[in-house]
Amino acid sequence: MQEQFDAEGRLRHLISLEHFDDERLTALLDKATGYLRPAGELPAHESRFAGRTVANLFFEPSTRTRASFELAAKRLGLHVLNLDVRMSSRSKGESILDTVYTLEAMGSDIFVLRDSEPGVPAFIASHVEPHVSVLSAGEADVSHPTQGLLDTLTIRQHKQDIANCVVTLIGDISHSRVARSVCQALAILGARQVRLVAPPAFMPGEDAYPHAERFSEIEPALRDADVVMALRIQRERMSQASIPDTGEYFKQYGLTAERLALARPDAIVMHPGPMNRGVEIASEVADGPQSVIRRQVCNGVAVRMAVMATVLETLHP
Amino acid sequence: MQEQFDAEGRLRHLISLEHFDDERLTALLDKATGYLRPAGELPAHESRFAGRTVANLFFEPSTRTRASFELAAKRLGLHVLNLDVRMSSRSKGESILDTVYTLEAMGSDIFVLRDSEPGVPAFIASHVEPHVSVLSAGEADVSHPTQGLLDTLTIRQHKQDIANCVVTLIGDISHSRVARSVCQALAILGARQVRLVAPPAFMPGEDAYPHAERFSEIEPALRDADVVMALRIQRERMSQASIPDTGEYFKQYGLTAERLALARPDAIVMHPGPMNRGVEIASEVADGPQSVIRRQVCNGVAVRMAVMATVLETLHP
Amino acid sequence: MQEQFDAEGRLRHLISLEHFDDERLTALLDKATGYLRPAGELPAHESRFAGRTVANLFFEPSTRTRASFELAAKRLGLHVLNLDVRMSSRSKGESILDTVYTLEAMGSDIFVLRDSEPGVPAFIASHVEPHVSVLSAGEADVSHPTQGLLDTLTIRQHKQDIANCVVTLIGDISHSRVARSVCQALAILGARQVRLVAPPAFMPGEDAYPHAERFSEIEPALRDADVVMALRIQRERMSQASIPDTGEYFKQYGLTAERLALARPDAIVMHPGPMNRGVEIASEVADGPQSVIRRQVCNGVAVRMAVMATVLETLHP
Repeated sequence: MQEQFDAEGRLRHLISLEHFDDERLTALLDKATGYLRPAGELPAHESRFAGRTVANLFFEPSTRTRASFELAAKRLGLHVLNLDVRMSSRSKGESILDTVYTLEAMGSDIFVLRDSEPGVPAFIASHVEPHVSVLSAGEADVSHPTQGLLDTLTIRQHKQDIANCVVTLIGDISHSRVARSVCQALAILGARQVRLVAPPAFMPGEDAYPHAERFSEIEPALRDADVVMALRIQRERMSQASIPDTGEYFKQYGLTAERLALARPDAIVMHPGPMNRGVEIASEVADGPQSVIRRQVCNGVAVRMAVMATVLETLHP
Repeated sequence: MQEQFDAEGRLRHLISLEHFDDERLTALLDKATGYLRPAGELPAHESRFAGRTVANLFFEPSTRTRASFELAAKRLGLHVLNLDVRMSSRSKGESILDTVYTLEAMGSDIFVLRDSEPGVPAFIASHVEPHVSVLSAGEADVSHPTQGLLDTLTIRQHKQDIANCVVTLIGDISHSRVARSVCQALAILGARQVRLVAPPAFMPGEDAYPHAERFSEIEPALRDADVVMALRIQRERMSQASIPDTGEYFKQYGLTAERLALARPDAIVMHPGPMNRGVEIASEVADGPQSVIRRQVCNGVAVRMAVMATVLETLHP
Repeated sequence: MQEQFDAEGRLRHLISLEHFDDERLTALLDKATGYLRPAGELPAHESRFAGRTVANLFFEPSTRTRASFELAAKRLGLHVLNLDVRMSSRSKGESILDTVYTLEAMGSDIFVLRDSEPGVPAFIASHVEPHVSVLSAGEADVSHPTQGLLDTLTIRQHKQDIANCVVTLIGDISHSRVARSVCQALAILGARQVRLVAPPAFMPGEDAYPHAERFSEIEPALRDADVVMALRIQRERMSQASIPDTGEYFKQYGLTAERLALARPDAIVMHPGPMNRGVEIASEVADGPQSVIRRQVCNGVAVRMAVMATVLETLHP
């Protein structure tokens, strides 16, 4: 794993939340908080980094995450290059690297990378020049660190004390880079308990999520939870889990108002988006008073501004 | 129909020109006029709204209109997100709304929407937060309000008195959102006469365009006209109108120099673009001295700046 | 050929390097040099032209060249419209022109054009208004003037005296617009010798490159060369050259370390990118100490800034 922190311990790349500690995670969340503004007000802007360049290299299509990184960059005064790259797998490693070298030579300071295969962000981070930073915007089913940060920030906004929180994740956990990253962050911040509910085929192996409690039925997993996070289901994976259709999935694992009533009355409902309404979550829950789903999106831009500003401070102290 | 004006009568959304009155329409055209500059000079710029965000959500592809909105936004100092969205019809309403909520949570102030199905702009306008505005960039065959405004502005620039104008529209009127919007604007400003010429299959029903005079042959419709607007023909629709090919269409309805000579000597020629030269309009007319087609395009950017500035003033007085 | 210089001899369009002279070429290279900054430092910026507009019209897809022009434009404070245009060949001339007229009416000051067919940049340059400039970003196999400039700038940075340089080009020269443009520039600057090495099918006719020395084998062509440029091979063209596969090409014409040792010890290695490693160039050469390939990319942004600034000075003295 490529070193994310430089010799002085400053954030240089963001590949995974795995090796963060409480202090560094809290510093990023505090910085992100400083970029939040009330809805409708002029968004936070900075000009310290004006004229620097971000290259969004998305090897896997994404509208939402790309837009979030793009707005974060623009609000920091950065120039943004959007590159949707389709490459054949065979020559990919080599081609990606030449693309990165090219964009680096043009003066890109930050690469934002999304890829459906594991290893690419660390691979590239180990090859860029000392004045360049790599940020993962989603790596296979391995890591999605800015999502983990925005989820954690959202929880922190609503729960005084994460150390006392019970967090329940529902759905396709084994394929979810979101689940991975948020659970790493929760472990670092010392959440009381993380619970996983999933069909057997979607439950990760014993070595992953060692401290989590596992449930096969949703009701006991929700009981007295402080935070409930429904994960997106890929319809293509239904058969793999021996679930005949989305209706059956909703019947067994859908987050309904009735089920949510088992959690604590002040429990918050989260979803990384985009939602399959009526599959993993009922619309009345998604749009209900306990939902903080739009707040997650809003926090996402602030978190990405904080991460970019932090690595730029590292590169140009 | 979603209310386009707020309680104080200020423009909040732009979905249709239907409920405008003379005063509001004139105010928008005056504002747009203030953004015009001679060709080659530095375009008008503003910084009052710098840092606000426009999301261009185009569910139907468009190069020209998207570019016009994008330049208008950039010249107002706005950040622009371009999102080409392809969605299956089935789950569209729900998905669009979740996309809009997401972009709204990221701090989008204005949504520019184009869709081939009717109802989407008003639907979204009824769901956004109080500090967000929706602008239609073309809605099915129902409405294209900024095109109507730029057409009206172009006519006003060349004709002292719209109340004395005879305006002739030629072509596929029944499917034309452009025709709808410009005729609404002309009715509000009290144009003397609107004439429609079309093959029977392209002539709208009796309840649409109640005040227009209808012609089946082009020559009498052109006689003494002050403004002649040729509409774009979709080749796919030819057979529907029992017209065997584009040559036959041009023979019957093409705007030639010979036919244009029937209009007033100072008549102007308009086309919303992109043109099918040799189908609905002869090249010598499109590029001739009476053509104001490029002036329409130029006015388009100014009109879109005026609309965006107006709704931003409404949102943030 | 459309006149690239105005009546006062100032650069108005950039279509080809053919009619440049030493003084003008040197002035452009000097200006580009002024935009260079050490790697990692804030890139050069200007605000003189802020608010002007560049339309990137790419009829042939390109990631690298488009990105280079886009960054160059943004660093000059220009608004950038990116338009990937796919047009059928039949109606192309007419449609391109209407697209150009439209973007011109919106206030585009500069068109950056790439097309796989010859003639388009000059055709458009002969139709735009006096306050608009056309820059070629690659025209069929005919011309790629900014690439020629960046290559020349790179050579000048490493070789005191171009008049004393021996430059060897290897590969598919007959289809290469890069080879054409760089050889035009080298002829103007008076390079001592240009050598061409290619399979017979890729060797240009006798009338092209009149002053170049031709080689069928790579070794003698490399002997004592100061500059070695490997050109990209299109795999589709292999069979045309009776070369059965990429391995065979590499065996005959690949630039290996062993072969490079035949050139002068201080010879530089160039490639216009994107490279086929292991086909036209060995990875150890591409990434070796004599390679200036990334420097070429870096110079590309500076050259494009210099070209845009120069034509904007011509348009708005």
